[in-house]
Amino acid sequence: MGRRVAFPSEIAAVHKRIEEVFGEHVARVQEAIRQPSVSGTGEGIREMAELLRGWIEELGGWARVVPTAGHPVVYGGVDADKPTTLLVYSMYDVQPAEEPDWIAPPFAAEVVELPELGKCIVGRGATNQKGPLVGLLNACRACLEARGELPVNLLFVVEGEEELGSPHLPEFVEEHKEELAKADAMFWPSFSQDRKGKVIMPLGCKGIVFVELRCRGGAWGGPVERNLHSSHAAWVASPVARLVNALAALVDAEGQLQIRELWNHVRGPTPEEEALLRKLAESFDESAVKQELGIVRFKLGLHGVEALRRYFYEPSINIDGIAAGYVGPGTKTVLPREAVARLDVRLVPDLEPDQVLTALHRCLRERGFDDIEVIVHDRYTWAQSHLSDRPVQAMLQTYRMHGFEPEIWPRAAGAAPFYLFSRQPLNLPWTRGGLGHGGRAHAANEYCTVKGLLLFEQSMATFLHLIATERGEWG
Amino acid sequence: MGRRVAFPSEIAAVHKRIEEVFGEHVARVQEAIRQPSVSGTGEGIREMAELLRGWIEELGGWARVVPTAGHPVVYGGVDADKPTTLLVYSMYDVQPAEEPDWIAPPFAAEVVELPELGKCIVGRGATNQKGPLVGLLNACRACLEARGELPVNLLFVVEGEEELGSPHLPEFVEEHKEELAKADAMFWPSFSQDRKGKVIMPLGCKGIVFVELRCRGGAWGGPVERNLHSSHAAWVASPVARLVNALAALVDAEGQLQIRELWNHVRGPTPEEEALLRKLAESFDESAVKQELGIVRFKLGLHGVEALRRYFYEPSINIDGIAAGYVGPGTKTVLPREAVARLDVRLVPDLEPDQVLTALHRCLRERGFDDIEVIVHDRYTWAQSHLSDRPVQAMLQTYRMHGFEPEIWPRAAGAAPFYLFSRQPLNLPWTRGGLGHGGRAHAANEYCTVKGLLLFEQSMATFLHLIATERGEWG
Repeated sequence: MGRRVAFPSEIAAVHKRIEEVFGEHVARVQEAIRQPSVSGTGEGIREMAELLRGWIEELGGWARVVPTAGHPVVYGGVDADKPTTLLVYSMYDVQPAEEPDWIAPPFAAEVVELPELGKCIVGRGATNQKGPLVGLLNACRACLEARGELPVNLLFVVEGEEELGSPHLPEFVEEHKEELAKADAMFWPSFSQDRKGKVIMPLGCKGIVFVELRCRGGAWGGPVERNLHSSHAAWVASPVARLVNALAALVDAEGQLQIRELWNHVRGPTPEEEALLRKLAESFDESAVKQELGIVRFKLGLHGVEALRRYFYEPSINIDGIAAGYVGPGTKTVLPREAVARLDVRLVPDLEPDQVLTALHRCLRERGFDDIEVIVHDRYTWAQSHLSDRPVQAMLQTYRMHGFEPEIWPRAAGAAPFYLFSRQPLNLPWTRGGLGHGGRAHAANEYCTVKGLLLFEQSMATFLHLIATERGEWG
Repeated sequence: MGRRVAFPSEIAAVHKRIEEVFGEHVARVQEAIRQPSVSGTGEGIREMAELLRGWIEELGGWARVVPTAGHPVVYGGVDADKPTTLLVYSMYDVQPAEEPDWIAPPFAAEVVELPELGKCIVGRGATNQKGPLVGLLNACRACLEARGELPVNLLFVVEGEEELGSPHLPEFVEEHKEELAKADAMFWPSFSQDRKGKVIMPLGCKGIVFVELRCRGGAWGGPVERNLHSSHAAWVASPVARLVNALAALVDAEGQLQIRELWNHVRGPTPEEEALLRKLAESFDESAVKQELGIVRFKLGLHGVEALRRYFYEPSINIDGIAAGYVGPGTKTVLPREAVARLDVRLVPDLEPDQVLTALHRCLRERGFDDIEVIVHDRYTWAQSHLSDRPVQAMLQTYRMHGFEPEIWPRAAGAAPFYLFSRQPLNLPWTRGGLGHGGRAHAANEYCTVKGLLLFEQSMATFLHLIATERGEWG
């Protein structure tokens, strides 16, 4: 942590207001979590969208619940009559919360003292992304209360299908591109501190192609009509063995991508990225990362900068799930007529989803697996920002003003549809971030720390003021 | 079907008695089915064993419910003071019946008219094996009623764990080997006619090794403590990819066994078997078999005698089940910390279970997969009888006296623990069979035909008389 600077009075006033009414702010985050909004099942989606619409209107803005072919987008704005317009992209949906090991009900948003973390709000969405989204709205309200105005105009695009792969966001952006193009930058609010308080600042995100492979008995062989007694494996081929062999052609025993032609599209690190990598390697605490991930060894026995290089610059493949036949209690010897697997490939520049799908089909065809059905679930491309971009500079200066020197990553390995804003036709510079810490997204006991929420809201106040300036810094 | 011969009066009298009281006999099969006895859950096991004990005692015999470390064995006998003692091996347990598509409740044993089959008893155990077991007891009772005596002494070993792989039968046989060795032959009663009435007479059965392969993150790599977000596949290896590659080393895309050294232990067909194969090939209706199995193509594009050769003389491998990660509704991108698969290898002479397990371990070790855990669920070896064996001749003559020329198969591809009786220390000649037809074992709507049950009981009466003679034929 660096040295916290004195804040200009405009910003300090907002920080003070946030502290004064922080109890109400925590309550509003809890209220958001207590409204389930599970996109996978549809539970509470409509109610959550309406809640959000009200909260945006409360800022003196306008908001609409815009229908799509799926769940609606909450679209809104606050016109502060300022030269800068910031487009806030976020989500109001959450993952299901059926995991058995929650220490508090997932939609109760209880404040619980967690070991080494202190007081935390525990609940589905606490960190992904109701905490950051509502925290930003809280900061805006405090800004209005303390200063009577916002430093920037705001546009909100808050989708309800992020956890489903944002299937209808492209059409929303396409339909609203004229209005959205008025923004000067796109921003994704998120908690960016790790457990120990270190700030991580990724400059991009990977793209993703998420597919299901399905192998059924058919003209090539295998049981077509029903599962067979396994003794028939003596003369009937197996869709499971077929799928397993197809997968082994795509990914080796270490989990390395085997679709060689994809590497033709991967560009190496830019000089900027190479410099970031070298800098990162200096502070890279390999054993701490292994402990955090709960692993003993990186793949291929990699260490240090070589492990980081894989993480940031290489496309990855993963078998997210596989199922066939019976593995339950007792014995069931069956030759299944169908086997299914799910794969995701994560894309780094300049690899595009179409290239992955074309190469995947070609690889299967060349190995004789052209009967295996490829069902595309999600697909979107990577997005990249640069250190010199105005919103990136504003976020960097925000961290520094709060006394934090962030660890700058070339990108995050996770995927998000930021490309919709960063590429044609909007071409917006963009950033993500905010102070604060949360964890266990998509798992039981998702949380954010209460102290982190306060820091996050104050950092949002700072960021809104800095992004309003020409160079992304104050004065 | 051949020409039915006139039966000697001793046998004809029993056949007549069976016809007279057949309504009661059907009712008793229904009573047996209506007593659930699911070894997987334990439901009704004790009650079914007691029911059976009573029915054996009713024949003027003795019977005990003998505890094992698992479900008990019903052990009994009828001393008819005859020179020949027949050991009847059967089972009183059934598979679960949770399939959704039963046309009648699985434990109601309703008599239902089925297309092309006529009146059938529909219920779990109808063909596997309560129908044949209770049918044999019915035939014995009719014999006592008609003739006042049985033509042979009987010993009954009826286990309650056949569907679990008979884990405690070896210890039962070992503990009772002195008494069991008094038997002259072992017999497994079963319906042996296909839908069209053709009698199949397999001279052996394959052995089985059924294992679970389990791959977890550990020192080799992969997530150890918990599932990870799939983006970490960029630098963390995958237990799923590892298991998939291990499986691909064991079985190819057609489902062919790849553990080459196993073939060293497989002996080719004997001259007797080769002759059987040629004879079988003459009546082999390839398209009917494909239709029955619901397949379009045999593996490797095999036809005719070559397909039969695979079925009878080659060890097979099958992936019965595989599971890892998530393949349910929606999207869940996860790098699982564990993957599991179940495999069965079916053994032909002279391949033994120990050889399979040794070779499996060696194959995994040589490919670098020695961390993959191999959990043995079931293992037992093959059993083989010969056309010249006394009980086989008695069964063959039984079919012929009833007007059927059976199709003799070198073996069945299914596995059963007949080796416990056919090998050291008991060394009993053995056979299986009986007229009658049933189907859908282990599936919804398991059935046996009512007409077939009558034929079965009459064929049992014939068989008991024939096995009592020195040469396995009458007069």
